[in-house]
Amino acid sequence: MNTTDTSDTDDTIETSSETTTERERRCGASTETTADGGTASASSTTSADETQSRCESSPSSGVESSTSSYSGSSCGASKREATDEKVGSTADDFDADPGSLTAVGLGPGQPEGMTERARAALLEAEHIVGYTTYIDLLPDDSGDPNVYALSGLALEIIESKGATAETLDFEVVPGVPAAQSCGARLGAPLVNDTVSVSLSDHLTPMDEIESRLHAVAGEGFTISIYNPWSRKRRENFRKCCEILLEYRDPDTPVGIVHGAGREDERSEIVDLGDLEELGETDLIDMTTTILVGNEETYVWDNRMVTPRGYESKYEY
Amino acid sequence: MNTTDTSDTDDTIETSSETTTERERRCGASTETTADGGTASASSTTSADETQSRCESSPSSGVESSTSSYSGSSCGASKREATDEKVGSTADDFDADPGSLTAVGLGPGQPEGMTERARAALLEAEHIVGYTTYIDLLPDDSGDPNVYALSGLALEIIESKGATAETLDFEVVPGVPAAQSCGARLGAPLVNDTVSVSLSDHLTPMDEIESRLHAVAGEGFTISIYNPWSRKRRENFRKCCEILLEYRDPDTPVGIVHGAGREDERSEIVDLGDLEELGETDLIDMTTTILVGNEETYVWDNRMVTPRGYESKYEY
Repeated sequence: MNTTDTSDTDDTIETSSETTTERERRCGASTETTADGGTASASSTTSADETQSRCESSPSSGVESSTSSYSGSSCGASKREATDEKVGSTADDFDADPGSLTAVGLGPGQPEGMTERARAALLEAEHIVGYTTYIDLLPDDSGDPNVYALSGLALEIIESKGATAETLDFEVVPGVPAAQSCGARLGAPLVNDTVSVSLSDHLTPMDEIESRLHAVAGEGFTISIYNPWSRKRRENFRKCCEILLEYRDPDTPVGIVHGAGREDERSEIVDLGDLEELGETDLIDMTTTILVGNEETYVWDNRMVTPRGYESKYEY
Repeated sequence: MNTTDTSDTDDTIETSSETTTERERRCGASTETTADGGTASASSTTSADETQSRCESSPSSGVESSTSSYSGSSCGASKREATDEKVGSTADDFDADPGSLTAVGLGPGQPEGMTERARAALLEAEHIVGYTTYIDLLPDDSGDPNVYALSGLALEIIESKGATAETLDFEVVPGVPAAQSCGARLGAPLVNDTVSVSLSDHLTPMDEIESRLHAVAGEGFTISIYNPWSRKRRENFRKCCEILLEYRDPDTPVGIVHGAGREDERSEIVDLGDLEELGETDLIDMTTTILVGNEETYVWDNRMVTPRGYESKYEY
């Protein structure tokens, strides 16, 4: 976001995990560090000259150590509660040539799961901006910047500052979403019409989430559940299981992938009727993605399979 | 699928586009060559010795020229109408060591949109199996093997032949789905809860598709529409537009991406009220993915943005 950054260089360039709290306080999305949501990372490239003058407080320009805050005060994502912090810079205050901003999807959790385009964008970037958690994991983490992630927020902030996406050269590099990377680990659970729902009520009211679950659970959609469980959201998870069981058999296969692509990755396929009680185990937390089968989904040879319907037309 | 292939080598190894019709006749999914559906490619690797003996009819083992049919007679996906064709081989007929089968997602439409893992899997493969259309495009095409694609069919066929996914070493390499690659081209349209629906009634009855559209159109989901239009399915598209307009304003933003990653790629952002008439233009066909915004989606600076809800909590 350094294209709208002219004055508060010291405040904007953050390079250590010590600044996480500050960043979270201002950007406020710390409770949204989900399988996809947090893995989207923004990188910005500028000309060398321009960067030099603005980023001298950065101890290094390498990918791992040079991070500029996505949400620094000059960028302007302040929590409404942080009333003592003044956020005023706009595009009009900016007197250098505009650079470019790229929202990069990092892929499904292994270095080799990143696309070559994403890797190239990171290597070209003068600064890598993102949640410290994910910066630290580079290149070991995952996601698509359009799935519960920051590409939308980036555009909203650019707009709010009076810049335009075209003058800034804003670009989104897609990645493999958590739903698909977890689906691949489980077999072929998402082959047909599918839906993804986040159980986080941080930004969406719980009654809307419930309404969406009611709407889709009675249809043939497979359902990917993001942000399934946190200590503050036990009730959301319980309610979700209850709604699903209103429409689907207790023996409906459910795939659970915890920490996809991380050292503590674990996968299990369980019955829908057993899902709720697993919320209290360490299998299900904010790094978990849950894939709920439809009425045709079955488990075979430890794989979860949702038929596309070929069996109704072809013999094999 | 060559691990279940012991006898019909000549029939199984297909290397030219001349065999497209034959392959389509037997696998029958030719009308499903969609943005994601067809882009999933299966590759199989076997030990060199084993391959040598079984694949001698293959003129080359290179990626571009060595293709073995996903749906050869020994693989067994025969159309029910093709009654004169006998498909009988099972795992019991197979007397060599099993190999491995990997369903590879090729990414969002450019060579650099493929993950490194996908590229490595293709380079390691002794045979690349897939729709000729997509084999010819390698490495220029796209998708995830779990999104209206072949990973499920592969498992179903493996099962039907009496083999197991574990003895075969079946693996799925995820890719970037068309919805996300098209979303990236349009800005940030899919940031919140989202659903994907295929309008193809080849494998799903149209009344189920309509029911799903009704269920989700009244909720806050963004909707990715796959297989939106073909000459035989004008009515499906018309009906879909009609249902969406029952629930959403005519000025709801709709992103249309035709031929993502191909030479004839085109993107447009239109109003929902204007969508139906575009079905009769060459912007919308089976290579097109359509992203329908929710009630909060807006267009800014030629980008489609669906707010995640940060604006309700933070100032920027």
